[in-house]
Amino acid sequence: MKTDIQIAKEAKLEKIEKIAEQLNIPEEYLNPYGKYIGKVSSRYYEEIKDNKDGNLILVTAITPTPAGEGKTTTSIGLSMGLNKMGKKSIVALREPSLGPVMGIKGGAAGGGYSQVLPMEDINLHFTGDIHAITTAHNLVSAVIDSHIKFKNDLEIDSTQVFWKRALDMNDRALRNIVVGLGGKTNGLVREDGFIITAASEIMAVLCLSENIDDLKEKLSKIVIARNMDRKPITIGDLKIEGALALILKDALNPNLVQTIDGTPAFIHGGPFANIAHGTNSIIATKMAIKMSDYTVTEAGFGSDLGAEKFLDFVSPNYGLDPKVVVIVATVRALKYHGGMSLKELKKESIYHLRKGLENLRVHIENMRKYDIPVVVAINKFDSDSEEEIQMVENFSEDMGVEVSVNEAFLKGSDGTIDLAEKVVKTVENSNTKFKPIYNPEDDIEEKIEKIATKIYRAGNVEFTLQAKKMIKFFEKYGFDHLPIIIAKTQSSISDDKKKLGAPSGYEFTIRDFELSAGAGFIVALSGEIMRMPGLSKIPNAVNLDIDNEGNIKGLS
Amino acid sequence: MKTDIQIAKEAKLEKIEKIAEQLNIPEEYLNPYGKYIGKVSSRYYEEIKDNKDGNLILVTAITPTPAGEGKTTTSIGLSMGLNKMGKKSIVALREPSLGPVMGIKGGAAGGGYSQVLPMEDINLHFTGDIHAITTAHNLVSAVIDSHIKFKNDLEIDSTQVFWKRALDMNDRALRNIVVGLGGKTNGLVREDGFIITAASEIMAVLCLSENIDDLKEKLSKIVIARNMDRKPITIGDLKIEGALALILKDALNPNLVQTIDGTPAFIHGGPFANIAHGTNSIIATKMAIKMSDYTVTEAGFGSDLGAEKFLDFVSPNYGLDPKVVVIVATVRALKYHGGMSLKELKKESIYHLRKGLENLRVHIENMRKYDIPVVVAINKFDSDSEEEIQMVENFSEDMGVEVSVNEAFLKGSDGTIDLAEKVVKTVENSNTKFKPIYNPEDDIEEKIEKIATKIYRAGNVEFTLQAKKMIKFFEKYGFDHLPIIIAKTQSSISDDKKKLGAPSGYEFTIRDFELSAGAGFIVALSGEIMRMPGLSKIPNAVNLDIDNEGNIKGLS
Repeated sequence: MKTDIQIAKEAKLEKIEKIAEQLNIPEEYLNPYGKYIGKVSSRYYEEIKDNKDGNLILVTAITPTPAGEGKTTTSIGLSMGLNKMGKKSIVALREPSLGPVMGIKGGAAGGGYSQVLPMEDINLHFTGDIHAITTAHNLVSAVIDSHIKFKNDLEIDSTQVFWKRALDMNDRALRNIVVGLGGKTNGLVREDGFIITAASEIMAVLCLSENIDDLKEKLSKIVIARNMDRKPITIGDLKIEGALALILKDALNPNLVQTIDGTPAFIHGGPFANIAHGTNSIIATKMAIKMSDYTVTEAGFGSDLGAEKFLDFVSPNYGLDPKVVVIVATVRALKYHGGMSLKELKKESIYHLRKGLENLRVHIENMRKYDIPVVVAINKFDSDSEEEIQMVENFSEDMGVEVSVNEAFLKGSDGTIDLAEKVVKTVENSNTKFKPIYNPEDDIEEKIEKIATKIYRAGNVEFTLQAKKMIKFFEKYGFDHLPIIIAKTQSSISDDKKKLGAPSGYEFTIRDFELSAGAGFIVALSGEIMRMPGLSKIPNAVNLDIDNEGNIKGLS
Repeated sequence: MKTDIQIAKEAKLEKIEKIAEQLNIPEEYLNPYGKYIGKVSSRYYEEIKDNKDGNLILVTAITPTPAGEGKTTTSIGLSMGLNKMGKKSIVALREPSLGPVMGIKGGAAGGGYSQVLPMEDINLHFTGDIHAITTAHNLVSAVIDSHIKFKNDLEIDSTQVFWKRALDMNDRALRNIVVGLGGKTNGLVREDGFIITAASEIMAVLCLSENIDDLKEKLSKIVIARNMDRKPITIGDLKIEGALALILKDALNPNLVQTIDGTPAFIHGGPFANIAHGTNSIIATKMAIKMSDYTVTEAGFGSDLGAEKFLDFVSPNYGLDPKVVVIVATVRALKYHGGMSLKELKKESIYHLRKGLENLRVHIENMRKYDIPVVVAINKFDSDSEEEIQMVENFSEDMGVEVSVNEAFLKGSDGTIDLAEKVVKTVENSNTKFKPIYNPEDDIEEKIEKIATKIYRAGNVEFTLQAKKMIKFFEKYGFDHLPIIIAKTQSSISDDKKKLGAPSGYEFTIRDFELSAGAGFIVALSGEIMRMPGLSKIPNAVNLDIDNEGNIKGLS
């Protein structure tokens, strides 16, 4: 089997102008970044906003395991399959962060014969969006410390600065630091830390903004600290939302690339699906819907995290209503949920598979609670036996959902035609209108309880004292009406990462809250969420290389 | 008078493909970044390396003052003037850092009617070169701390890590920090700090590398720490030069833009002229020389810093021999050197001007020590009186050098035709071959003594104990043959920033050394060199803005 980078290199790429032509994007709205990448001005949306909406397909997955599910590969393959069957389709995905590429894993541009290209650029600096966010984020920090040093007119409490610094790098030594050492010239000594840029609230804000004015307004609302009277201090108080918007002016524009089949793809924005809403930029998805019959998008992690946030936060607030949810599952991952060890997953085991299917059941049931049709996409691996595949198919059919075995990785669009056909059939036959799990007017506790009991299958929800204090704070300053984003482990339906399969009836604990007032949500924290990954003993960086002719090694 | 951004906006820009066509660059070697910026593959140099060399013009200046000299504006204007008089000319300049744009000043893309465009992009992220350097730089840091945490096979002494972290931001709170707090998971606690990215040795290395292999070799030689036996540890020991080169693969390619007249400009790389060699990338200048009759380039700060380094380090080691040096001076700055206060500079003062001309005299004399012809470019301001201008002209003529009054800022190429003609005349009439101040085989002290006594006009040089210890270290590990880069204040010919005009006969002190083994030089430190600027009380960021139509405010 060829590596991803080998397959990518053999692909014949179309110039980005040709890809834009497929979508009838006028030349004035396209800015090339190299020969095969372009940015489409966010202003172009104004030109097409009265076009008829195409159908939105939301791709999600069972609970992630170390075995890998191939959600992105399936999303790309599905869009390629739709195009192949004659439906105009665009895939809209999150853009990868560079830092993790240096860490333990490869990139996030799909794999095998379902990739977005040029993968080596998408996985590295791409069009610089994340660097722009890093810059904007750290300007806020520099202005905060500078403000405190120069008389502190806003009376910022230096022990209550929530805004950490950010870098797109896996760097555990920066998680907890002390800044401002070296005496009066360097300012006030205080505790601080770095998060990885994708975790910045500016990433979430950028992905939710439709134009510069919208961006500035959201940025200005970001709460960065409290003052001596414990009142929230915002970026608007620092008067730098204009500078931040200027820094982000190009990052706001969706990135256009192509799949390995030369079909269009938007790769834009990459917020987390725990502390943020976990899907690519709204503006990219909205543009894609106006320019295609079928837009395929994905949400981060399993359906309990990404899809829940898409359906409860993104859809109601930004008018993006998926017509169908595709749940990606693999035999390997299901066996892992059934208790099989990672090393043994290549062996057939009907026993572990049957047990693990409980995880798939929960995800199917959950999505149905939104009154939205479901298609199960089995992402086939070489090691899967006929009997195992059959079992997942039967299980899905018994639950009354369409199911398709796809080979996006090995066969590209040829391996996803069946999935594409089933998705189209499901959309065409569906006339339901989905509804979120909670109502906007529910109070904070009610919203969380509905998500936790209906989606996470908890028996009850416990709020720590700290969490209760924060609810009071939100009420006092008028933030309690905001939607809820729950940050919990992605490795279990529950709040305990060790509970595989289909845990239920447990006590779900909210230990604290954070405010993302700019992005427009409250983050409810269950457990510790890692915002700055580390490098492993032998980081992937030592495998990466390039030669004088530009041949690259180590990216996948 | 219109602002720089207004003038820039009114200019009619040519597509970057048209600019590349002027230079006969084949389309396959040009990668566009937006409509008006392109990167020319460093590999293109292989195609043109046998072309005849054009003439190289080095632009430098008198000792910088707060009044501003307009060296970049003059360089751009001169290249425009040369094109206007029918000589094919390219200007090759350093690229601005974004961080300082948020601080106290505007950008560094020229001014008035002598600008490189699109200035708003050049002054912000441009093509992401500096972000790539930030990323590469911080990967080294992350790998160092990770290596120490995971058993430390290289036995790195955590108190002897010279490699600081880097960010393109003015952020004094990051000058001195403590990293690795929070317990065993986060690694070892140690002192650290951030420098601004332009000060990174990777910036210097990138600007001196001609292809990927060269880049990797230089990167691998960078010394980042000592081990427990006090031996130098390099990036090669960490085995990540391949990853760094991959991160820098596009940053290595020169950026092509245009002047306000639609003539070509390379803006690529921006090392400091104190701790590094202070001029744009070698590859950009080499390309420009092969594609034009006259390449105009500049060196940082006054001639004692940038031009000295160009003539003593860049020229001998990289084969770039300027045919003429242009020294930029203004009446205002000369009066400042003569003791006039900043607020009064608009008033005529023959007395202060006469005194201040001593500074110009030193710079002219110094350049002549290299056996290179000099042209003085008086950058004219509205407030300059006829008599003042006449005085500078007479002074220059009395010293036997060509002098031209230019109005690059106010009139663009029309204001620099006379300067261009005098430069061409000087080049055509010159048959000298310049020679550096020191010989490569001189020992460290000799090299420094020659620069300090001949160029800085010191009476003698003193080395501190610490400096002497470092010389021993260089000798022990075979670094003592490297060229010398002296880091001293830019505000005086001497090592005391308060000494304006033409100080001489003083004691020049080297307090310490640093090793830039990757870039291939030893940095001799006289006094403290600031590597991380801070923001002012009211940073420029609060003046910056952009609206929904993309109109920008606050950049200059």
